Amino acid sequence: MSKVVKFYELGNAEVLKIEEESIRLPQTEEVRIQVKAVPLNRADIMFRNGWYEVQPEFPSRIGFEAVGIVDAIGTNVSRFQVGDRVSVLANPTNGTCGEIAYIPERLIIPAPEGLSDEAATAVWLPYISVYGPLIEYSNLQAGQTVVITAASSSVGFPAIQVVKERGGYAIATTRTTAKKQALLDAGADYVIVTEEEDVKQRILDLTNGRGADIIFDAIAGEQLEQLAQATKPGGHIYIYGLLDTRSSMVSVSIWALIGRGLRVQGFHAKEIIGDREKLARAEAYIRNGFQRGVFEAVIDRTFKLDEIVEAHRYMEAGEQKGKIVVTI
Amino acid sequence: MSKVVKFYELGNAEVLKIEEESIRLPQTEEVRIQVKAVPLNRADIMFRNGWYEVQPEFPSRIGFEAVGIVDAIGTNVSRFQVGDRVSVLANPTNGTCGEIAYIPERLIIPAPEGLSDEAATAVWLPYISVYGPLIEYSNLQAGQTVVITAASSSVGFPAIQVVKERGGYAIATTRTTAKKQALLDAGADYVIVTEEEDVKQRILDLTNGRGADIIFDAIAGEQLEQLAQATKPGGHIYIYGLLDTRSSMVSVSIWALIGRGLRVQGFHAKEIIGDREKLARAEAYIRNGFQRGVFEAVIDRTFKLDEIVEAHRYMEAGEQKGKIVVTI
Repeated sequence: MSKVVKFYELGNAEVLKIEEESIRLPQTEEVRIQVKAVPLNRADIMFRNGWYEVQPEFPSRIGFEAVGIVDAIGTNVSRFQVGDRVSVLANPTNGTCGEIAYIPERLIIPAPEGLSDEAATAVWLPYISVYGPLIEYSNLQAGQTVVITAASSSVGFPAIQVVKERGGYAIATTRTTAKKQALLDAGADYVIVTEEEDVKQRILDLTNGRGADIIFDAIAGEQLEQLAQATKPGGHIYIYGLLDTRSSMVSVSIWALIGRGLRVQGFHAKEIIGDREKLARAEAYIRNGFQRGVFEAVIDRTFKLDEIVEAHRYMEAGEQKGKIVVTI
Repeated sequence: MSKVVKFYELGNAEVLKIEEESIRLPQTEEVRIQVKAVPLNRADIMFRNGWYEVQPEFPSRIGFEAVGIVDAIGTNVSRFQVGDRVSVLANPTNGTCGEIAYIPERLIIPAPEGLSDEAATAVWLPYISVYGPLIEYSNLQAGQTVVITAASSSVGFPAIQVVKERGGYAIATTRTTAKKQALLDAGADYVIVTEEEDVKQRILDLTNGRGADIIFDAIAGEQLEQLAQATKPGGHIYIYGLLDTRSSMVSVSIWALIGRGLRVQGFHAKEIIGDREKLARAEAYIRNGFQRGVFEAVIDRTFKLDEIVEAHRYMEAGEQKGKIVVTI
């Protein structure tokens, strides 16, 4: 038997249940994994609430990623064998949160070497979410300015690290002063406290009136228009999250969009994970950064599997700085 | 003395006055042009109403482009001489509508050869507005599908021609059946009548459910969400106009934007006109298309200079198919 997290209806953290289920053999092209650690992602909250683009099929497992050890392999699995330490790439349908997970081989890659299980869970989705927009699509150059909103998230810290690795200038935004020092310590060149500062004016001041080259936005909220007006002509705005759930519409004024020739682009990690060549480039870039020690996983707090409800509640409270991890 | 169009306040077409003014010498780096024909652009209407990004300084001239003959040159003008037949590239501040215009040399290029003055006015802004998004930015390939909204405009016909020149599939949209046949005659592969057809569903049907590669949108209106949902993953949406003036916000749902990884980009012809290299590529592409006979200027109607008020009213009525030109 193995313990797994399941839920039977959409709702708040209390819908999550720990259950025992029997262990089965992996199917064709499937790998069975003894799970060691599972990161919480914003997507877990959305999936649990029915806000994610894919809806759960009840009873549903939960958990988008994991680090663990291959326990058994199905037929036609060629790249892995029992005992390999692996990472599960983000996906909504296989449910990693539990002692055992069953994952298609195409969603598995070798775990990052030299990192603990907890730290290894903070690597793929966060760094791929940064790599895609900043490196693969915008080919960020030294000297360019990137504004990172909601920068204390588990994607925000990697974004600061990637901008600095490239020799760029990282402007982080955060709502209150509570996380300002942590962001400066993480390498941000400037931190805008949005409840106290004029976001648009501050970005323009910091760029000599020119505007930022790239906006990397997790919020998709009302602040977007201010950010757009502080983006340089021809600049890029990436929206990869929607922390502001008050509206599902992403809106920019026609004046900013046409007048500045802005490019507003949605980003989802599946664009990289679902494309072999892009994924290979992302993997190489990210592994290299960790090997050289320029990237560092930022873990906020760990929970035990039995504390899954508390872990979800903690993420929803939004006070974390970095990754929340469930250890098994 | 020369007749010029001037206005002293923002407002409807009646604010435009024909006045006589004395002819002066061109200033440094300025070219004096004996104007032969001036195209009406949507930007004229916006400028007159105070909706354009640049506000008129009263008393203000009007007119963004022109075709004419160089009449005198200022000091430091090196590329043109008296007698040259030239085109004025689109700009809001120099006012081409009149018998004489004074234009900075950098905004002047040789007029297209082999075209009448009227036809020559329908070349640069329309074709540059198409060239920029479809060729310079998206490098349109044979077999790709482009949706062209408000396709009976003076940019819509060139867009159809450019898509066909590239071997693409051109889907034109128009509100009523009135202009459907004209768009088919102009080369559109399919015409969606938006008041009668489901835009999203029709595009999906025409692309085997895949969605369009590129949306080339002049409207920036409520229909945008339907278009976004009918754009293929990773597709491009260009907004180059705002025919729908009910809202100044461009809005797309987060689900379409992130779920499909769409790129929504504002386009303004100044991005090409203000960049020497891009302008040179645009000029070469456009001149070549006219020389080979694959591009054809579509003129709807001409007006005399004295009829400038009627010409503006006619444009605002929105019944034209192609370019409205004022001949001098």
